[in-house]
Amino acid sequence: MKIALDAMGGDFAPQAAVDGAILAAKELVGKAQIVLIGQEEHVAPLLQQHGADAADLLFISASQVIEMGEHPAKAYQQKQDSSIAVGYRMLHAGEVEAFCSAGNTGAMLVGAMFSVKPVPGVMRPAIANFVPKLHGGLGILLDVGANAECKPEMLEQFGELGSLYAQYVLGINAPKVGLMNLGEEEGKGTSITQAAHQLLKVNPHIQFIGNIEGRDLFNDKADVIVCDGYTGNVMLKMAESIYDIIASKQIHDPFFDKFNYEAVGGSPILGINDNAIIGHGVSTPLAICNMLLQGYQMAHSGISDQIKNTFKS
Amino acid sequence: MKIALDAMGGDFAPQAAVDGAILAAKELVGKAQIVLIGQEEHVAPLLQQHGADAADLLFISASQVIEMGEHPAKAYQQKQDSSIAVGYRMLHAGEVEAFCSAGNTGAMLVGAMFSVKPVPGVMRPAIANFVPKLHGGLGILLDVGANAECKPEMLEQFGELGSLYAQYVLGINAPKVGLMNLGEEEGKGTSITQAAHQLLKVNPHIQFIGNIEGRDLFNDKADVIVCDGYTGNVMLKMAESIYDIIASKQIHDPFFDKFNYEAVGGSPILGINDNAIIGHGVSTPLAICNMLLQGYQMAHSGISDQIKNTFKS
Repeated sequence: MKIALDAMGGDFAPQAAVDGAILAAKELVGKAQIVLIGQEEHVAPLLQQHGADAADLLFISASQVIEMGEHPAKAYQQKQDSSIAVGYRMLHAGEVEAFCSAGNTGAMLVGAMFSVKPVPGVMRPAIANFVPKLHGGLGILLDVGANAECKPEMLEQFGELGSLYAQYVLGINAPKVGLMNLGEEEGKGTSITQAAHQLLKVNPHIQFIGNIEGRDLFNDKADVIVCDGYTGNVMLKMAESIYDIIASKQIHDPFFDKFNYEAVGGSPILGINDNAIIGHGVSTPLAICNMLLQGYQMAHSGISDQIKNTFKS
Repeated sequence: MKIALDAMGGDFAPQAAVDGAILAAKELVGKAQIVLIGQEEHVAPLLQQHGADAADLLFISASQVIEMGEHPAKAYQQKQDSSIAVGYRMLHAGEVEAFCSAGNTGAMLVGAMFSVKPVPGVMRPAIANFVPKLHGGLGILLDVGANAECKPEMLEQFGELGSLYAQYVLGINAPKVGLMNLGEEEGKGTSITQAAHQLLKVNPHIQFIGNIEGRDLFNDKADVIVCDGYTGNVMLKMAESIYDIIASKQIHDPFFDKFNYEAVGGSPILGINDNAIIGHGVSTPLAICNMLLQGYQMAHSGISDQIKNTFKS
């Protein structure tokens, strides 16, 4: 199995990408190979520095880079030899089983939509994020930013996508799906959440436990937390800021330590035909490594086939 | 000046209400009197127990109670001698300058809408909440639940209402108004936040600093944080859960201590013709006391007249 990494993606690329790839390659010996994609003149010297450690890494040349500030759709179209475009082409061609990048999030989404494409039946793919649970384990929160505005049917599908991920990748049996709302009662919320509640309630593929509230993000009420991308993004960034504040105050606590994005490393795009993961712009080698390990887990679990089978019907 | 308190409101009423009123009365000696409204058979014995301490409290009898679980509009209409209905009648008649209750939130909103009524020109009043800032002071977040769905014009008005409160009650000079969004760029967000951005940008009554993100809630970017009631409610309850988690872990920190709702005590309803504050259902005497002090501050500042003047034009 091969897992590809955009060696040019992230604020500290290519150094952090190469270092993270080497860490991940050690973890994945005998299971998967890492494929680094990037500009040879920048990546090759780093690989040479690492010498024997880097011997297991495969390298694919891509002459262009989509910068963080570029317009995603334009850049993706114009830079066909960028590391992101090359990565998606390899993913689409089946040459790699997952593609990870800490680069331009918008360009990663564009590639997901136009290269590997949404699974037939999925209205709109979602970006998922992981939430540490107070009593251990992880929950999954989606969407966190791919779709600011959502139709009720999209929220219903996010429940299905998240549930499949929780089951097949996180190993949660019969994951509980909750709808983020401003009150527990069925009739609460916006017209969108009210309608989504009714759809989720009768969906036969998931175990819907009803509305949950902001206070339930970290408790055990739901394993899968469904919301629109605007709300999910606000919650995610708020949680990140809490982590930063706690870290800046030198408060050390095993639960809050898990808020560190490095521990998971990336956010999968769910509902597309292959496995793609978007990393944080500030990704460290540890974050890159964990993103690659997550890519391996996704590929190994066959999650994208599970999604295809579910939405075929 | 007289500040009224629903003696029957809250999970620990009337005990916590009476205890809180006595605390507040001591703080407000020579400035304001507290008026307790409730069932005489339950409140009078508590006042007698307190003896001299309770001598400064005024008491107004209300024979009925709107329970926490009751349908707000129905209960408000049917229980015309409830403590909440009596409180709003006194507020509307000018017999008290502010009315506070930790009781049924919906009934408090119904009373605000149908008894004292929205200020002419205000489309929909909002419930505001306070956010501790990392570098000291408080920010104001609105709406946190009165309006799950908002038109762009409502969000614009929330910016004005919050700005006036920040200026006249919190004493912040030229408060910075930020629009909660999923990205800083002007074009980001939902169609609602995009349109609201354009309205806020040209509003002459406020200092709009643009979009802010979930990570900016606690920093100094904005003093006034504008969002729809669904998003605000999710953020508020998430912050409350963070406080609960930190408290349960015996982590003590001056910043996170300020997350404690008791420190502020209640959420004002902004955009109505008088001063009304909704307290947390679990309000302790300290929370009740601080809610009453906030009621005094609102009345003393003349905030509702400032709002009327601003929206008259």
